[in-house]
Amino acid sequence: MSKKIDLSMPNAFVPGQGNLSSEDDAMVARRYRLLGPAYRLMYENPLHLVRGEGVWLYDVNGRPYLDVYNNVTSLGHCHPRVVEAIREQVGILATNTRYLHSLILDYAERLLATFPSALGHVMFACTGSEANDLAYRIAKFHTGGTGVIVTDMSYHGISDTVSQFSPSLGKSVNLGVHVRTVPSPHAYHYPHCDIGAKFTADVKSAIDDLLRHGIKPAMLIVDSLFTSDGVLADPGGFLKGAVDAIRAAGGIFVADEVQPGFARTGDFMWGFQRHGVEPDMVTLGKPMGNGQPISATVIRPEILQEFGENARYFNTFGGNAVSCAAAFAVLQAIQDEKLQENARVVGAHMAEGLSKLKARHDIVGDVRGAGLIFGLEIVTDQTSAKAGREATTRVVNRMRDDGVLISVCGKGYNVLKIRPPLVFSRENADMFLAALDRALAAE
Amino acid sequence: MSKKIDLSMPNAFVPGQGNLSSEDDAMVARRYRLLGPAYRLMYENPLHLVRGEGVWLYDVNGRPYLDVYNNVTSLGHCHPRVVEAIREQVGILATNTRYLHSLILDYAERLLATFPSALGHVMFACTGSEANDLAYRIAKFHTGGTGVIVTDMSYHGISDTVSQFSPSLGKSVNLGVHVRTVPSPHAYHYPHCDIGAKFTADVKSAIDDLLRHGIKPAMLIVDSLFTSDGVLADPGGFLKGAVDAIRAAGGIFVADEVQPGFARTGDFMWGFQRHGVEPDMVTLGKPMGNGQPISATVIRPEILQEFGENARYFNTFGGNAVSCAAAFAVLQAIQDEKLQENARVVGAHMAEGLSKLKARHDIVGDVRGAGLIFGLEIVTDQTSAKAGREATTRVVNRMRDDGVLISVCGKGYNVLKIRPPLVFSRENADMFLAALDRALAAE
Repeated sequence: MSKKIDLSMPNAFVPGQGNLSSEDDAMVARRYRLLGPAYRLMYENPLHLVRGEGVWLYDVNGRPYLDVYNNVTSLGHCHPRVVEAIREQVGILATNTRYLHSLILDYAERLLATFPSALGHVMFACTGSEANDLAYRIAKFHTGGTGVIVTDMSYHGISDTVSQFSPSLGKSVNLGVHVRTVPSPHAYHYPHCDIGAKFTADVKSAIDDLLRHGIKPAMLIVDSLFTSDGVLADPGGFLKGAVDAIRAAGGIFVADEVQPGFARTGDFMWGFQRHGVEPDMVTLGKPMGNGQPISATVIRPEILQEFGENARYFNTFGGNAVSCAAAFAVLQAIQDEKLQENARVVGAHMAEGLSKLKARHDIVGDVRGAGLIFGLEIVTDQTSAKAGREATTRVVNRMRDDGVLISVCGKGYNVLKIRPPLVFSRENADMFLAALDRALAAE
Repeated sequence: MSKKIDLSMPNAFVPGQGNLSSEDDAMVARRYRLLGPAYRLMYENPLHLVRGEGVWLYDVNGRPYLDVYNNVTSLGHCHPRVVEAIREQVGILATNTRYLHSLILDYAERLLATFPSALGHVMFACTGSEANDLAYRIAKFHTGGTGVIVTDMSYHGISDTVSQFSPSLGKSVNLGVHVRTVPSPHAYHYPHCDIGAKFTADVKSAIDDLLRHGIKPAMLIVDSLFTSDGVLADPGGFLKGAVDAIRAAGGIFVADEVQPGFARTGDFMWGFQRHGVEPDMVTLGKPMGNGQPISATVIRPEILQEFGENARYFNTFGGNAVSCAAAFAVLQAIQDEKLQENARVVGAHMAEGLSKLKARHDIVGDVRGAGLIFGLEIVTDQTSAKAGREATTRVVNRMRDDGVLISVCGKGYNVLKIRPPLVFSRENADMFLAALDRALAAE
């Protein structure tokens, strides 16, 4: 196995290290032989999984792990309602959008009802990357520009085009010449700033720089919770100035809700709502089908009009009946099981517990988040507030060994990325908090 | 509904025309309201489908249609083995590639065994577009070039990057400045040419033109059956010179098997095999999961090495356990049910029947194909051989009204695209041939 492999991914397994069973070691080698060198595993000792149920994942030895990380399975693993919807529809039909089918329309109607009425159309694809890729195609068509502005540790996807505006992929994946990055709107790192004013000024500078190079701005796209940047939720409202600025420059504003969307933030269904803005486009993915591949781009009709009339769009599996059935079940479960409310209530309980841990552990520099997504910044000590990258890695792996799964994000690779399923209970939260307390105490 | 809508898609429904029931008419309007103007329907009177089983699709009134078109459901709609595999795995786990899981490896091993041994790695995504997009990213990394050569009516996908080398999307979707098109290798249109020599010369000219513009060639990518160009299968072997030419120029050769792959051609598992070439990369999609979203890029290890070490690849749903379970079942069904053999035998029977129709109908200019995929070129008459675009549209819609589904391809929009599932029986073939005979006789 090559020694040169790039490991700029936070919490990446380092081949040749770790303490794997001989079976898992052979599996890692077999995986490299078959899938090649582009895949990365998580944790010092990767997990060999065989089963999932609710908030639990089980490894090959039957050991349970509390899943506080995978937001694709946002309703928990194998949610009965989604499993049933897939099992039923897969035996009936999985048609495509070149035929009429009622399910895609029933789902589209119910989905659009969760958005401001100005966002009137929805188009379906299979991955968040495809949703963001389509958003960019539409933005270019509508604005006549090509320029893109993103935050400097953002992730938006892995298509050729989208990878060019996903700086978190690392320095081996070049940004496009038409792409500008702005610093993450990081209240903890800029304690003396008005974060909204600073972010607006940074976006305006990026617009000016694009224009100075003869590049017309097409879009500002942000994950509305800045998840990969380190989970930056507050203060609510700080996006407004930047949205006004990109529109004033002839560009549009795209809210990437692939990570923050579908009720995760507790107070709202969508992350952008905490900022009091109405995006021109919104992209959806990961938790949309609770594991079934489906994604979407939600669009203001006047922005889609010219693209739609001239450039037809057909995604073979996008909007197929099985994926729509799964997504419909997800939306119904969120509403019927009051999961947004659960995210708010259990999230508040977790936030309180995390704040107590900050008071107890000097290496916890900052606790932040919204609903059931948290970033917990690890530092050398609260006074100097220097990034504690190695300690972060140790904490995450200690918790994994203790049976609790979280991971890492942020530019300094020193933010615990905590993202339990929306069905997380108060008891699950307490179990997680106790494990985190132990892992921090061991530093 | 806008009157300006681009209808350059062959066999597209024209809004406002047709003879729809009031229910379907309302559904078309609702669809436009929810999904917007970028979606197109097929046929003068779109089909409103509710169910599929084997070679049959059923509309909302319970009317059956013989499906001779949808190659996603290549094993037939709702194949019991695939349905069962999905139903089982969806209740166990749908994990991703950042954990170890045996199913993806078992499937990868079995899939790679169907390829020449030099093609040693496989990477998974969700759509054919993503597979081709990844192939291009890898090709750029490996060659240091950006130039792409495709045929002039080819289709490779709808990501921003791939749409720039998919000329069949129509003139509103711009080709990239780094893209060159070559004429389809069309034996019927160039009856006095050695098609292999001509295609090689055309590719060499395109290479020269790229270099003259300072653009280093990255790849030649072709659908190995030239499906969208009109189904151009013969003479076997004609690709070899072009493959040698792109390699001599420092580029690589990518076989797009999204449409021709998985035993459709009868004689071989993969379309490129009829040409006696070994591609540098092969892309797979549509029929891979019989409707479940899954795609792949198969790669020579030495070509993937540098990309893989430097640019990690993670596709959230790519290679998830449910999609792999479906794909595994597809591969097993093809092998256990001898579907490649069925494609060969029933395909030969259909080819014979189509040749008889050509002898009986002067508007059939050419019959061609391989296994269970055919292009039947409609002309004004066999002597002048002028494209019969309107007649083609009439024949396809007459057949649809008669309960048999096919569609259209080719640069002149005058090629019947005939692509039954691999489980097509001799009796199904005879039913199709009788319907086609009637539709042609009505001209």
